[in-house]
Amino acid sequence: MRLVMIGLGRMGGNMARRLLQAGHEIVAYDRDEGAVAKLAEAGAIAATSLEDARGKAGSPAIWWVMLPHGEITDTTITAIAEHGAAGDIVIDGGNSFYKDDIRHARALADKDMHFVDVGTSGGVWGLERGYCMMIGGPDEVVRRLDPIFAALAPGAGTIPRTAGRDGNDTVDPRAEKGYIHAGPAGAGHFVKMVHNGIEYGLMQAYAEGFDVLKGKASDHLPEGERYDLNLADIAEVWRRGSVISSWLLDLSAQALAKDAHLDGFSGNVADSGEGQWTIEAAMEEAVPVNVLTTALFARYRSRVEHTFGEKVLSAMRFGFGGHVEMPQ
Amino acid sequence: MRLVMIGLGRMGGNMARRLLQAGHEIVAYDRDEGAVAKLAEAGAIAATSLEDARGKAGSPAIWWVMLPHGEITDTTITAIAEHGAAGDIVIDGGNSFYKDDIRHARALADKDMHFVDVGTSGGVWGLERGYCMMIGGPDEVVRRLDPIFAALAPGAGTIPRTAGRDGNDTVDPRAEKGYIHAGPAGAGHFVKMVHNGIEYGLMQAYAEGFDVLKGKASDHLPEGERYDLNLADIAEVWRRGSVISSWLLDLSAQALAKDAHLDGFSGNVADSGEGQWTIEAAMEEAVPVNVLTTALFARYRSRVEHTFGEKVLSAMRFGFGGHVEMPQ
Amino acid sequence: MRLVMIGLGRMGGNMARRLLQAGHEIVAYDRDEGAVAKLAEAGAIAATSLEDARGKAGSPAIWWVMLPHGEITDTTITAIAEHGAAGDIVIDGGNSFYKDDIRHARALADKDMHFVDVGTSGGVWGLERGYCMMIGGPDEVVRRLDPIFAALAPGAGTIPRTAGRDGNDTVDPRAEKGYIHAGPAGAGHFVKMVHNGIEYGLMQAYAEGFDVLKGKASDHLPEGERYDLNLADIAEVWRRGSVISSWLLDLSAQALAKDAHLDGFSGNVADSGEGQWTIEAAMEEAVPVNVLTTALFARYRSRVEHTFGEKVLSAMRFGFGGHVEMPQ
Amino acid sequence: MRLVMIGLGRMGGNMARRLLQAGHEIVAYDRDEGAVAKLAEAGAIAATSLEDARGKAGSPAIWWVMLPHGEITDTTITAIAEHGAAGDIVIDGGNSFYKDDIRHARALADKDMHFVDVGTSGGVWGLERGYCMMIGGPDEVVRRLDPIFAALAPGAGTIPRTAGRDGNDTVDPRAEKGYIHAGPAGAGHFVKMVHNGIEYGLMQAYAEGFDVLKGKASDHLPEGERYDLNLADIAEVWRRGSVISSWLLDLSAQALAKDAHLDGFSGNVADSGEGQWTIEAAMEEAVPVNVLTTALFARYRSRVEHTFGEKVLSAMRFGFGGHVEMPQ
Repeated sequence: MRLVMIGLGRMGGNMARRLLQAGHEIVAYDRDEGAVAKLAEAGAIAATSLEDARGKAGSPAIWWVMLPHGEITDTTITAIAEHGAAGDIVIDGGNSFYKDDIRHARALADKDMHFVDVGTSGGVWGLERGYCMMIGGPDEVVRRLDPIFAALAPGAGTIPRTAGRDGNDTVDPRAEKGYIHAGPAGAGHFVKMVHNGIEYGLMQAYAEGFDVLKGKASDHLPEGERYDLNLADIAEVWRRGSVISSWLLDLSAQALAKDAHLDGFSGNVADSGEGQWTIEAAMEEAVPVNVLTTALFARYRSRVEHTFGEKVLSAMRFGFGGHVEMPQ
Repeated sequence: MRLVMIGLGRMGGNMARRLLQAGHEIVAYDRDEGAVAKLAEAGAIAATSLEDARGKAGSPAIWWVMLPHGEITDTTITAIAEHGAAGDIVIDGGNSFYKDDIRHARALADKDMHFVDVGTSGGVWGLERGYCMMIGGPDEVVRRLDPIFAALAPGAGTIPRTAGRDGNDTVDPRAEKGYIHAGPAGAGHFVKMVHNGIEYGLMQAYAEGFDVLKGKASDHLPEGERYDLNLADIAEVWRRGSVISSWLLDLSAQALAKDAHLDGFSGNVADSGEGQWTIEAAMEEAVPVNVLTTALFARYRSRVEHTFGEKVLSAMRFGFGGHVEMPQ
Repeated sequence: MRLVMIGLGRMGGNMARRLLQAGHEIVAYDRDEGAVAKLAEAGAIAATSLEDARGKAGSPAIWWVMLPHGEITDTTITAIAEHGAAGDIVIDGGNSFYKDDIRHARALADKDMHFVDVGTSGGVWGLERGYCMMIGGPDEVVRRLDPIFAALAPGAGTIPRTAGRDGNDTVDPRAEKGYIHAGPAGAGHFVKMVHNGIEYGLMQAYAEGFDVLKGKASDHLPEGERYDLNLADIAEVWRRGSVISSWLLDLSAQALAKDAHLDGFSGNVADSGEGQWTIEAAMEEAVPVNVLTTALFARYRSRVEHTFGEKVLSAMRFGFGGHVEMPQ
Repeated sequence: MRLVMIGLGRMGGNMARRLLQAGHEIVAYDRDEGAVAKLAEAGAIAATSLEDARGKAGSPAIWWVMLPHGEITDTTITAIAEHGAAGDIVIDGGNSFYKDDIRHARALADKDMHFVDVGTSGGVWGLERGYCMMIGGPDEVVRRLDPIFAALAPGAGTIPRTAGRDGNDTVDPRAEKGYIHAGPAGAGHFVKMVHNGIEYGLMQAYAEGFDVLKGKASDHLPEGERYDLNLADIAEVWRRGSVISSWLLDLSAQALAKDAHLDGFSGNVADSGEGQWTIEAAMEEAVPVNVLTTALFARYRSRVEHTFGEKVLSAMRFGFGGHVEMPQ
């Protein structure tokens, strides 16, 4: 199939490459001409503008927008809606908020265009491993795009099958190839959002565990109760037959094998929005999500030297006990 | 009554003064001779050693130990047990762990001596306001010491009575004067321990709230959604008719009135053990105490620049996404 | 001053009464005619409709809207905007979301009308104790309404003054009477929102503490480490000289004095929106609010028999360990 | 090698089988004679008592104790110490508290016996997949037991190697085969304890995420913002190329494929001690572990209908607002 890829950053560029390798045709556009040129070398049709891309897109055109979430995605989809034709399909493959998807789907439907949202996981490894995709949109349109999704997805590969799926007509075989049609507009990004919420929680669980292991060497503990543990070996052994083996643990094992002190890492941990949206969604549902929330807040806290609240605590302690908190 | 006060620091010294003012006799001992001399000026009988105190204590002797919890309290109680006589009463008025009380009570009972544990709240304000006391020990002994507790306690004062206490034979009138006999050995310190656990939670609730108020002026928020709020006035107004009025809020209001930026406070917040013991007690009971725990952990976090766990997070993010966390 | 009170429920009715007692004139309107009649008996001018109220309001009219937040407040303010005249003042005294205030203020400004938002605390006790008020809006308009606010507020009363306010020109004397002008439109409700966020945290801190006290009698603990504590007396004694004395503790002491088992209370704890908004505001600011969040989530959890997540945990445990979780 | 296996439950029995399959000799003892008989059929030497086992153990004897942690493990190790001879090795392969290990090691050292602690992960899958082992004890003894550990461990298998281990002399090659020598006595169980702490956190992160997905179908949400998501397919797709793939997710996918409603599971989630010990260890180190703690507390909460604290909240809300919480 022919598909216009808009946004050739780390994610969009690699996805376009994987599609080219699978025999699809890519019309490539990015504001960065160098990125377009590089992809043209890999076999893509270069476009110099959205209008140019429109001309080269074929009909109906399939637009895959792969841009940072927020304003830039919004204005791009609006621009496509203006330039596009009835029957065109616009795919938002970025990390957009699912309520924006619902809005975009309605706006495009007014012009008889279709909207599909795709949440993808796999990070920089996707080109090689394939992309795990969670898709929202009209059933018929998602089915029409199946060759695209099948090419981007990891496929069944060597991962053992899950017991209980064979002959089970409540499940969808596409899930085993690495993509699902989650529901109507927004459902793809919603599932991806929760995925990231979970990701934060998992990461924080490992982080806290390694923190306790590391802290066990502290001079403040009684002698005879200290251990100077080899974190690289611990991460490695947990990969092998333990209940907590995971891909995130694999990555931790790699980092710790390189430098068990992780000296090169700042510890100022960013968050990308999905964690926050997951908490908001949970609150709309009145679902308690203590782990997901505390994982997000640990990131907030990591990025400041002190909160003002901590000074309030010091001030109160001085007030009732005359305690003076010493800078450390 | 005559009572030996051992430990004349901020707490012990002031309690001795309050007892003297009420007409009790105090035999005063501290390793710091200056502290003893100062209290002698206030009317106390100076003692130069435990042995000396023993001679001046009368019979049966009443020992009030007011020392930092841990080893020093332990060795002092052991020494008194050696020097003391059957019928003596040893009161631990410090912040000891209640399981240590149970142990002390058993050891003293072997010598026909009595043990009483007293948890006190009121901080540096106790001399003036009186001390709120939570007492553990044998009923008969606690009753015998009543003149001591009545003198130390705030008394009913002007605090409005609680509806539902009049003619209620399930409650104890001593509570309205500011002290209770909570139960057998350890019960006093147990109740005081939970008191401090709650204290941490309350403080953190206010701290977080002020943090949100302060953060509302941040440049990162959309213009038109920022407020530059007067925290001193907010703390003040909440003292007056709001649901969240409290003594801790009074102290916050004072600190914020002096300097709304709290620039003089480090924000490295100490904890004194009771918070941790409360969590341990809750876990023994399988009671979820999320607020009390998170309040304690906020203090731990306040005292370090970064946790190792945060570096683990940065390392994972680099691993799956190529993200580089920038120092800020 | 003359003021139209729209909404004569528990809050609006009592505020109208307090204003009447202070000599103000109240035009009273509610969809419930009985409520209007009752207030007329107390001296108010009855209105049968918004239009009717308009006629009786004087000019410029002052409208105090005291309705449940959400749609009903929104449509009422819109209706007043239609019926009102330039120069009119609309006060939203309910629990509205501060971003709605910003929107309302803009819509009314288009008609040269003024908008003021007032967050109030004090609950059912306000009629007697006075209302603690946090006010947002244009400075000149808030000053013009001062007689209203002064009448509703508790006034300085017998609450001790906060050290550091005398001669301090960074603070506002109105705070000591129980109301503040927090900032422009929305600032009043924003401060009230955070107030409620804190309230949830404080309540949960006490709740967890009492839970630990109660649980200490459990049969699961080793004999000799159990205490059967008198919670009514503990709550009472903490009111008297302890660091954690507060109005919420006073209320707890009352409830526990009536029935230490609290058998009449369901424990399905509602939340009113402000807690959630506080978390959202904190996330917009990237401020960690672990205590406020966990307090809100405890309420969510209290309202269901089991979360689905708990079944997921049971399922995983069965998966890796063959563990069967027994219903209890 | 010849080894006495004491305790032939699910874990001990399967480990003995795996050792027999690898050519080791097993003297098998359990209070349950049927368990002994079954293992004898699989090739083990049956023992009818500890004394009998002693006679058949060879010299020096190697004792592997595989019993529930606590009293039974304690008395068994004490009994072995009495019956054993200098040079014997006692291995505690259960889930003991690491401070008990330190105590056991000292007691055995007094009789010139050796103590080794082994934390194992892998659950009921270990017989087939091999056991992930974390070992504490004297270096020389752990090396002598290597054939045992190598037979129990999964071995390198097909799991991809971790980059950065080749030629890295700070890491131990045993980790890649699924076992590590973590440090002196107790270090094995300490690492296993933290492993389980992490496990609780990971499980809770998934549980909360699935809860949010499930809740998105709720009638309380605005129409047009609800999704009826297929949780079995979502779990499946996340196994394939996503950042959050893990063995725990594999298990969730299996459970959800069988029944997406998980109706057969009670949701009363047990905990086995290690979660609590991890929190205690973290508090001794002053390391904040919010995720691990909140995961444990979610299990406590899952096992009761209501906490007393929730009734306290209801009582306070009634006190200040007249709110009556309805049973649901």
